[in-house]
Amino acid sequence: MKNITKRLLAGDRLALARMITLIENEAPEARGYLAELHQHTGQAHIVGVTGSPGAGKSTLVTNLVRELRRREHKVGIVAIDPSSPFSGGAILGDRIRMMEFSGDPYVFIRSMASRGNLGGLAVSTRDVVRAMDAAGYDPVIIETVGTGQAEVDIMRSAQSVLVVVAPGMGDDIQAIKAGILEIADIFVVSKADKAGAEQTAAELTMLLSLDTKRKHAAWRIPVLKTSVVKEQGIVELIDAIAKHRIYLHESGTLARRAERQARSEIQNLVIQAATRALQSAVSSEEWRTLLEKVSKRELDPYSVASELQARILAASSSSSVPPNATQDT
Amino acid sequence: MKNITKRLLAGDRLALARMITLIENEAPEARGYLAELHQHTGQAHIVGVTGSPGAGKSTLVTNLVRELRRREHKVGIVAIDPSSPFSGGAILGDRIRMMEFSGDPYVFIRSMASRGNLGGLAVSTRDVVRAMDAAGYDPVIIETVGTGQAEVDIMRSAQSVLVVVAPGMGDDIQAIKAGILEIADIFVVSKADKAGAEQTAAELTMLLSLDTKRKHAAWRIPVLKTSVVKEQGIVELIDAIAKHRIYLHESGTLARRAERQARSEIQNLVIQAATRALQSAVSSEEWRTLLEKVSKRELDPYSVASELQARILAASSSSSVPPNATQDT
Repeated sequence: MKNITKRLLAGDRLALARMITLIENEAPEARGYLAELHQHTGQAHIVGVTGSPGAGKSTLVTNLVRELRRREHKVGIVAIDPSSPFSGGAILGDRIRMMEFSGDPYVFIRSMASRGNLGGLAVSTRDVVRAMDAAGYDPVIIETVGTGQAEVDIMRSAQSVLVVVAPGMGDDIQAIKAGILEIADIFVVSKADKAGAEQTAAELTMLLSLDTKRKHAAWRIPVLKTSVVKEQGIVELIDAIAKHRIYLHESGTLARRAERQARSEIQNLVIQAATRALQSAVSSEEWRTLLEKVSKRELDPYSVASELQARILAASSSSSVPPNATQDT
Repeated sequence: MKNITKRLLAGDRLALARMITLIENEAPEARGYLAELHQHTGQAHIVGVTGSPGAGKSTLVTNLVRELRRREHKVGIVAIDPSSPFSGGAILGDRIRMMEFSGDPYVFIRSMASRGNLGGLAVSTRDVVRAMDAAGYDPVIIETVGTGQAEVDIMRSAQSVLVVVAPGMGDDIQAIKAGILEIADIFVVSKADKAGAEQTAAELTMLLSLDTKRKHAAWRIPVLKTSVVKEQGIVELIDAIAKHRIYLHESGTLARRAERQARSEIQNLVIQAATRALQSAVSSEEWRTLLEKVSKRELDPYSVASELQARILAASSSSSVPPNATQDT
């Protein structure tokens, strides 16, 4: 076993930080390390927290972490920063708030930038969570901004998904209906001290009662209210997360989901390999020529695709034949 | 050239119908036929029409087709039916309405079912449009229901996208913001005789003025109002579509988009081939065993993926080497 993985498993924060950097940079050696770490994962409960900007996610996460530390949990946090330059201020605000934990060796916070490639972000988030899990962090909290398809993809790594809604954000409820509802496990109405909290909670409850697909599911999604001002709801929320974790185990949902995720991960790794092979097989200049010919109807996309496929195959079998490949061609 | 493609190019409706069935069934020979047809495509203007259920899309499309026929256009329509069993009634209603054109040899309507696989639907829709284009239909109208990611993917095949909104459907505007706004070229407020049409049009105009990404684009998205009752707006809408087509040509946008689409199509064909190879390489029983071992941490997903990759490579190079492959390995 490599030194970095050994140190990471022993809880070395620097080794964990370096591993995450390798994952973010898509360094070729990262995959081998993660393969070694895999057998040491599966202990952490992975909690997703999502909601619109201004919903109060960061404050909620701060309070969750504070309470989890009181209970002596070792907490990992993966914060997905939006790539928008306008949110710089908010991110800075979050960082300052999180400084509360900066001296705490049992809290590990990592911000990840989306760099415009949200599909890739879902993959690296999953790998970062895996590294934190192997390093003994439990729970690992994933925090995302927004309720679109990208967030849904990222949240698929989480086992319990919290959707945070601030009072009076009616737009949010529509967005939730269109996007993240299918993966929500717990709703949190934040800022419960403010006017409209009751109504927002009632709207969410109604939305859930109308969701026929969920209606007969064994897990009834709770709608909880939290208030930082009144110091309310955090203990209840942690209890609800714990209850959901028990439900996942006892119902067999956790095992089923884990197998489904493993299958889609393996498929994605194979597809990624094909995509990369294509990238390195065709220069951007050749792409330009090919696409121009397709546009002018001198070539058709199907023939181009099968020619490129053949080229990838030839390149793969002549260069790096993996150890398990049969060589009888 | 094959008989079916020859007949299709000559405008034979039965040949077109058969080709579409081959595309829908993902028949292996379809791809070869489409490759032959490719050089005869690129003539049709491809118009997408989308909006929520009840927005009045089908009525609008009916009226568009009627006016286009008056102008002696040969019109193709691809209607994406939602897979939901609840919409059976509405679909029947559409079909009855479309019967108006059932005796017209210059209107070709094809309904496509989503079968739950919306990714695949985007691919087959593009191929069906290609077949109609080759058969001389211009414009080809693609009609979808909804404003989610799947619809956005399908609409990427269209050159001019109409988003239909009925008066007073405030929820729709939120959904548009979350989804289809990025690909809208023309907004249509249907049922303009009803109360609230002005307000809905004003809301859409405001939404557009707030969209900073679009603000400086050369195409200013128009917000048009149509009323079937008052027989208003259809001529103006057809003019707007024609104006958008000219804009696409003159600005070079059409060529740029076509090349971008060709590239993503070629990439998807390569990825699809890898996915299919994986499917045929691993039985469902083997998947079960593999996933169980990954869950139990006896195997890791990275090693499984590279082993399967090697197996696919070995299978591909020993069996069907495409004609263009270099055989010097």
